Parts: sequence; C-alpha cells; structure tokens
Amino acid sequence: MKTVFKELKRKLGEENVLTNEADRALFSYDAAFGEKILPDVVVFPKTKDELGYVIRLMNENNIPVVTRGAGTNLSGGTVPVAGGCVIVMTKMNKILEINENDLYAVVEAGVVTKQLADEVEKRGLFYPPDPGSMNISTIGGNIAENAGGLRGLKYGVTKDYVMGVRLFDIEGNDVKGGGKTVKLVTGFNIPGLMVGSEGLLGIIYEVVLKLVPKPKAAKSLLVEYDSILDACNTVSEIIASKILPSTLELLDNFTIRAVEDSEKIDLPINADALLLIEVDGHPAVVEDDYLLVKKICEKNNGRVKVAANSAERDKLWTARRKALSCLARLKPTLILEDATVPRSKIPEMMKAIQDISKKYDITIGTFGHAGDGNLHPTILTDKRDKEEFQRVEKAIDEIFEKAILLEGTLSGEHGVGLLKAKYMEMEVGKGTLNFMQKLKNGVDPNNMLNPHKMGL
Amino acid sequence: MKTVFKELKRKLGEENVLTNEADRALFSYDAAFGEKILPDVVVFPKTKDELGYVIRLMNENNIPVVTRGAGTNLSGGTVPVAGGCVIVMTKMNKILEINENDLYAVVEAGVVTKQLADEVEKRGLFYPPDPGSMNISTIGGNIAENAGGLRGLKYGVTKDYVMGVRLFDIEGNDVKGGGKTVKLVTGFNIPGLMVGSEGLLGIIYEVVLKLVPKPKAAKSLLVEYDSILDACNTVSEIIASKILPSTLELLDNFTIRAVEDSEKIDLPINADALLLIEVDGHPAVVEDDYLLVKKICEKNNGRVKVAANSAERDKLWTARRKALSCLARLKPTLILEDATVPRSKIPEMMKAIQDISKKYDITIGTFGHAGDGNLHPTILTDKRDKEEFQRVEKAIDEIFEKAILLEGTLSGEHGVGLLKAKYMEMEVGKGTLNFMQKLKNGVDPNNMLNPHKMGL
Repeated sequence: MKTVFKELKRKLGEENVLTNEADRALFSYDAAFGEKILPDVVVFPKTKDELGYVIRLMNENNIPVVTRGAGTNLSGGTVPVAGGCVIVMTKMNKILEINENDLYAVVEAGVVTKQLADEVEKRGLFYPPDPGSMNISTIGGNIAENAGGLRGLKYGVTKDYVMGVRLFDIEGNDVKGGGKTVKLVTGFNIPGLMVGSEGLLGIIYEVVLKLVPKPKAAKSLLVEYDSILDACNTVSEIIASKILPSTLELLDNFTIRAVEDSEKIDLPINADALLLIEVDGHPAVVEDDYLLVKKICEKNNGRVKVAANSAERDKLWTARRKALSCLARLKPTLILEDATVPRSKIPEMMKAIQDISKKYDITIGTFGHAGDGNLHPTILTDKRDKEEFQRVEKAIDEIFEKAILLEGTLSGEHGVGLLKAKYMEMEVGKGTLNFMQKLKNGVDPNNMLNPHKMGL
Repeated sequence: MKTVFKELKRKLGEENVLTNEADRALFSYDAAFGEKILPDVVVFPKTKDELGYVIRLMNENNIPVVTRGAGTNLSGGTVPVAGGCVIVMTKMNKILEINENDLYAVVEAGVVTKQLADEVEKRGLFYPPDPGSMNISTIGGNIAENAGGLRGLKYGVTKDYVMGVRLFDIEGNDVKGGGKTVKLVTGFNIPGLMVGSEGLLGIIYEVVLKLVPKPKAAKSLLVEYDSILDACNTVSEIIASKILPSTLELLDNFTIRAVEDSEKIDLPINADALLLIEVDGHPAVVEDDYLLVKKICEKNNGRVKVAANSAERDKLWTARRKALSCLARLKPTLILEDATVPRSKIPEMMKAIQDISKKYDITIGTFGHAGDGNLHPTILTDKRDKEEFQRVEKAIDEIFEKAILLEGTLSGEHGVGLLKAKYMEMEVGKGTLNFMQKLKNGVDPNNMLNPHKMGL
C-alpha cells in the first residue's frame, strides 16, 4: 500500500493525495445517517489522464474504489465500506462548453450543479434538475444517484437530461456513451445505464447535458390548509386536470413550525399543511394554469396567496429548501425517507404516514415533492434511545411496505446505497437483483467499484 | 430439434409455432435492405407464461433467440443470422391500463404504436413518439430500437417515455425495472439500459409508458425554398431562437417529386426544398411561435403557406410519412441512411451530402427530421449493378465520416443491427465496444440473445 501511496503522490502531487487519518476521516461518511468507515487513501484527480492513471493503479493493486463528488447523497452510497481508495471528483470541475444553438452543455463530472444552472441561465437557457443539495452537489454525483428535486413533475429528473457520458471502466478503458445529438442509437444506451448506477459500474468523468429554453414567466403560490388531507386531494386534482406545475411542494404543520422557528419568514404556523406551487412557461399559459390551480385549491378549502414579486418568491423557495436542515436541528438523529407513489395515491400515502406515526408514537415531519408523488417523511429521534429506535425501524418498514402496496417505490431520488439495500428484494424481486448482479459482474468481475452497495 | 418443436406446439398450440419453410421465410428478413436467413422455428406466445416457457426451453437446448414485433426496423436487427427461434410478440398485444390521473399506460410489448397513440388521445392524453412505421410497429420493437420519429425535437424519442419494463433474462428469470412513479431509483436503471438494446440483453414483455397532456392547439406550415441551403439555415435559426416546434421536416426536390408523382397533392415540384413545420401547445404559444417561425422562414427566402384546416394539415403529414415508400418505387434498391448531427450543423451536413452525391454520381433523395439534426439521405440504386454499388458504398462511408466529424452519429433512430455493425468502432471506439461486450457477456454468457448484432 505504501508504494501505491508514493506513486499517487508522485503523479497527482502531495496535496491531492490524503493519507493521514484526520484527513481521511472527512471522507468516511456522507450526508446520510449511518456508518463511518475510513478509506485507506483519498485522491483528487485534476485531469482525465490522472483519473485514468489512478483507476489503473488501483485495479492492478486490487484496491477497491469509491467515487464521489460532494458526498451529499442520503443513502450511504459513498461510504467506503471496504476501505480502499476514495476518488473525489471535485477538482475536475470545468464547464467545457455551453452550446446555445444546439441546446447542450459539456461539463466535467465535478462541476457543481448550481454553478451550471447559473451559467446556462445567463444565456437564456435552463437546466431543470434541482436536487435540494444543488448548491454543493456535483453533476457527476447527480448522475450517479439520478438526483431528482423540486421540478420533477413537469421537467423530469437528472436521467432526462443526460445525453452523453464519458467514463472509465475498472480497467481504465475509455468508454463513450451517447453524444451531442437528440437522436442517437449507436450501441447500448450507456448514459441510461450509468444514471442511477451509484458508482458500481464505471467512473464518469465528462457528460453532455440537455438544456431547454428558459421559461418566459412564472408564478408562485402559497396555499394554506386546515387539513393536510385537503392539501393532498388538491395535488391529485391538479394532476388529473392535466396541468403540470413546475413545482408542487407540500409541508406539514411540524415542518412549517420548524422552518418558521429558524427562518422567521411569516409562515402560517397554525396551518395543518402548506402547498407551495409554481407554474411556469409562456405568460398566457402561466395565467391560465394559475387560475385553474387557484380554483382547485379553493375548492379543496385552501387559502391562496400569490407571491407579489421575485423577492417574495425567492423567500418561499428558500424556506422550502431549508426544511431538511431546520428539522435536523430538533433532535439528535434525523432519518429522511423517500417513499414515492403514483401521484393520485398521495392522499392515501399521507394518511398511512399519519397512522404509522401514531401507532409507533414517533415524530414524523413530512414534506416533499407531492406533485410527483415523492414524499419525504422525516423521522426525528435519538438513536441512543434503543427502545424508541426499535419503534422507528418498524415504522420505516411499514412506510415502505405501504409505498410498495400503492405501486410506488421505497426510493424516489435518494438512491439505495447502504441504507436501503436490505429492502431491495422486497421491491424489485430476486430476478431483478440477479440481473443487476450479472451486469455488475460483467463489467466489474472482481467487485472493485463501490463494493457492497445496492444489495449486490 | 424435432422434440423441441413438438414441445412448443403442445404448449403454444399448432397455429402459434411455424416450422415449414414457406412460413419461416416470412421471418427471415426485416424492413432493411439486406440478407435473408431462415430461422429454424417461429413462435407466437400469447401470454407471459408461454413466453417464459419458450425462453427456458430454447436456453436449455442452446437454441439462439431473436425477438421481434412487426419487423419494421431498418438495420437488419431482427434477421436471425444464427438461425434458431424467432419469437414474434404481436400476439401479446393488450393495453393493460391507461391511467389518466397518473399519466402512464401499461401495455404488453406487442401493442401497435398507433393503437396506443389513438387510445390515449381519446382520453385527452398524448404519447408523442411517432416513428414512420407507427401504423404497424410495436411498442416492444420501438423500445428495442429506441425509435424516434417526427416529434423528436420537442418531445424526445422512445427512451424519454419508458418508465418501467418487465422482461425475461435468457434463463427465463422475471426482471422488473422502473415502475409507475416519475421518480424511482431503486436499482440500476434497467428501462434505460433496455431502450435501444436491440434484443441483445433480454426479452421485454410489458412496459409502463409516460403520457403527457395533449397539446391544446397546433398549426402546420408548408414552406417552399428555391435553395435547400436556405431551408437548412432556416432550421438552424429557428432552433437558435429558442423555439421548439413539435416537428420540423425537410424534403429535397427529388423527394418532393417522388411524393407528388405518387400522391398528387399539389406539392410545389419546382421547389428545391420544402420545410414542413408544426408548432403546438397552448393557443397563445402556438400563435407566438408561428409568427416568429414565419419571420425566420421569410428572412431566409422561404414562401410560407399555412394549413387552413385539419384536412389540409393531415394531407401534409401523410405526404411526409409516405416519402420513403414513394422513393422506394423509383429504383430496385433503396438504401435509407440515418446520419444525425447537432442541429446547427444541418446546413453543413446537407452540403456534404450534395457534394458526395455529385462526386460518386449517384442519386440521393434527402428528407428527414431536420429539426433534431436527423437526416435520411436515401440512395436509389440497383445492387445488381456492381460498379455503381461500389460507388454507393464509398458514398455511404463518406456520409458517415462527415456526420462523425461534425460530432454527430451514424444512426439517429434506425439502430445498428447488422448493417451498421462495421461502422461501430469508428464512432464509439474500442473501449466502448469492449464495455458493451462485457455487459452482454454478463447477462448472456452463451450469446443466445440475437447473436452477431451491433458489432458484438
């Protein structure tokens, strides 16, 4: 191992190879509640050549590799459970091209999502995927996790924007999937395969992302409810009326209070629930959609307030984005779940979460992307309290069982990683796990790429 | 083999197992110009159970399997080059669910594309992918080929609509990928992998497709040009102005004449080129987009005519859809190519096609989906004329080289199959082919699924 470290330092420079324990400890965990496991070495390649070199060196020496960006994932996906080498991609962070005529961007994997979003917006374009962590998360990480966000309902998720990928396989061979054209069918859909592969199949270093024209107008609504079930029914009815708002977010009373306590932005703390809705597009579309959405909200006993200007609008969305961190302050342990159901089943899922919360006498704050069926029931607990924690674990099991019963999934956008591995078979079945294992074995027969994840 | 046939007939019924030569001959080819190779047996499973049974029986007896729907693919992808068993999916053709609230449909793989499109339209919904062959092609075939169509520019292609797949692997294990929710990240993105996999990785039997609300209005334009390069410049300028028409089709003079000769619909036969453009969406958007498109067309010397009513509109699009069959009548051999470039490079690609046509003194009619950079240069020839055919082959090589030089691809929507296998390495490189081979070996180690395709 010592010789390998020396080699790495020679090639990448001392400052890009971390070997002492305190430094390595920073890469022993990610944003998920869970284990910390020390890697043996942490490297920061700056170029494609350096990255290829690292991979080949690790492979020759049978050292497992975990690739990560900012480590904001919420399922333990970048915890280096087998030790080995953590490759941090944050120094491969160049935007290589933003093509305004052909509506794509080419970026290195370590580019921060928000940075790309801002750059394309300056050019009248739009990169819609907006995971909660976008201020620090990287595009490569977004792809590995197939990150979602607030705009999934209308604009889809990361997978809908990946036109091309360049990656190294575990042997350090250069692989190219997709490209710069809307239509492209030469070879397997490697970009499709890599999205959501959580670092188990190859190491992405460059991507081509689809851009769309920036919507010309938008309107944000804050809708207050005395009953969260009314709010959920509103969501179902909006979708059924064939409007696609760009965002349709739900906050329950517990979350509203947590956000207001911390942010002081005049949220109605007595409301049982809030919907935050945004419609966007052509000004005429925005107006039509707004009127129809308002009518549906009011029919379901919602009190509608429209953001008067962009400052008010920004305040609303900032509040929403802070929901998680505001909740996290309340108790020592926060468990953020990601149950997702077909959109019309949101009322039933919400009712189930309430019942489960009562049954096990635990605190669940629920917020999330109600418009695409993606709720984040957030359990506040203290894992040192063993008795309570057993109830928490049972509650989580029941939430997942209900989501699957409603033809949903146990993870909408947070991945499987370590934390959800044990639930995989329940959702996808043995045949599917077996097929995934065969794909993994095909490209990584010695299990060197992010081993022991996703139930594989 | 005899025992296997008997088994098949017992399980599927005599009428669903073809063994005599005349019957099998009908499944020895597909819509591509190319070889005919007889399969040993052709089967029509009617249920998932029957399909699973067939796959397991074939695998146990080491009989290769080629799965197909209507066989409309244009790259020889369903020619059974190693003989064996052709599985025809056209009897698994039930629409299982159209969910208006959650905007998805569940269908068996053998459902005809047009039938699904019509059924969802009745419910105010829209399934956008519209390959030229949609009147007979199947959804399973569309997925296997990642079929495109006229609406790729605004609405994307088949891969953008596949939310979930159910498939059998070669051992007959049941595999489930994706599902009914917009967000879903449990496990590898198997729907993404299966799209465009040309039957090499598994056998899809059921899919979940995303639907969108039907656009409220549309307007179709016929634009006449004295110079095809003006038409191409119009295309680039429309895209750069950040409008996304739902269709933006180009026909050159040769194609216009061929269509008019056959269809008699008053196309302007002296025009050097036509653009057929449709904008759709909210009525206000349609009007704004129409006015801007018209201005750009006129600036580039186009003469704009608007379809006065839906009958006129249908006439236009029917004419466009018949371009291929009208051209096919003119000469014994038609070679339909599928070169695709980033949209802004359309003028340069068109110029290159014209130069290549002159250089090799061959007839190329060009039409296609100019709006998404996907041209179909169509070579009319007679393969019995060996001297000419050599020139044709050189011309094709040059067309592909040019497309790749312009950062495009040699196949936008027709697949690789047999006919383009030899060009794969030029486009994607050795590392990528090697990665594809490793994926294939992982899930199909004995190479039983559609062997000898895609350069693998």
